[in-house]
Amino acid sequence: MYEGPVQSLIEELGRLPGIGPKSAQRLAFHVLKLPLEDVKRLARTIVDARERMSWCTRCFNLAEAELCKICLDDRRDPTVVCVVEEPRDIVAVERTREFAGRYHVLQGAISPLSGVGPEQLRVRELLARVESEAIAEVILCTNPNIEGDTTAMYLARLLNPLGIHVTRIASGLPVGGDLEYADEITLGRALVGRRDVAS
Amino acid sequence: MYEGPVQSLIEELGRLPGIGPKSAQRLAFHVLKLPLEDVKRLARTIVDARERMSWCTRCFNLAEAELCKICLDDRRDPTVVCVVEEPRDIVAVERTREFAGRYHVLQGAISPLSGVGPEQLRVRELLARVESEAIAEVILCTNPNIEGDTTAMYLARLLNPLGIHVTRIASGLPVGGDLEYADEITLGRALVGRRDVAS
Repeated sequence: MYEGPVQSLIEELGRLPGIGPKSAQRLAFHVLKLPLEDVKRLARTIVDARERMSWCTRCFNLAEAELCKICLDDRRDPTVVCVVEEPRDIVAVERTREFAGRYHVLQGAISPLSGVGPEQLRVRELLARVESEAIAEVILCTNPNIEGDTTAMYLARLLNPLGIHVTRIASGLPVGGDLEYADEITLGRALVGRRDVAS
Repeated sequence: MYEGPVQSLIEELGRLPGIGPKSAQRLAFHVLKLPLEDVKRLARTIVDARERMSWCTRCFNLAEAELCKICLDDRRDPTVVCVVEEPRDIVAVERTREFAGRYHVLQGAISPLSGVGPEQLRVRELLARVESEAIAEVILCTNPNIEGDTTAMYLARLLNPLGIHVTRIASGLPVGGDLEYADEITLGRALVGRRDVAS
């Protein structure tokens, strides 16, 4: 419908999650009206972020180097590991200031409907860490919804026999909700009130 | 909160219209998980569209060359000019297949609340076209809302003394609505039923 480059731009933007055809069109026209230097900076920032970021080889958080900032921080307690689904969940937990240990990012949750099983997640790597690092406690901090609870139960069954303390964040978060949207106080209380998981 | 490049990306995306902080974060994580070649293509498409597109020097539609595709098309009737607010409105009118003339894009509408007056719009250029081209009719096809109606009335007052036929698209579009969202049949009827504007 539009001239080539505009049509391509609308189609590219429409491929992004949550951007429908009308939003893509509005974004495209916004871009066309921006000063060229702003557009170039936007494009550079996109490529730059993708090129410079990779996954921490220990905890699979986002990292600029081989290890992420948290794994590189000596002041963090290496004996407690908080298991989350995504890097953004680390930001949510950090905001509570209730946790000073390390993390392990599963990069998803078990979801049979979406075809995601334990083998698609960083479960093997978590077990290897428990074997090789001096970990005393694993806090299962997956989302309090069906996928997150399933993942937590699954991990508890694997981790409990290894003789470490396995805990799950306390309820207090609304069930069916999303960890990313919890306020700091609720999420902080949930961390403080964590309880053992029977396998 | 995030490592530098990710934080920059979230901030850049958050500057786009309709993208709040949470959407920006979700888009950023989506980008970080895309293959690098897809990310580079996205960035290239953004810059490419902005670099290759400019405004038609006659009608101020988007154009890859000095004139837009419609102005370059000999089969279009040069005696009828449809005045719209934005290039996307041309796409809406074209979809009706009821119009075979040329366009004039105002690049906005009169809006005292947003500080947009006639001098910020391509009004002077429209008057110059009426002086120099053999234009018999100007169809005022601005949005059927306060800003669009105000703009149409303003233009009618300027154009009527020049001895050309000045029309306004018929009502039929829901008042207070947006031309961009009209269905083809409604907008087509509105075009066919256009009426004179008394100044």
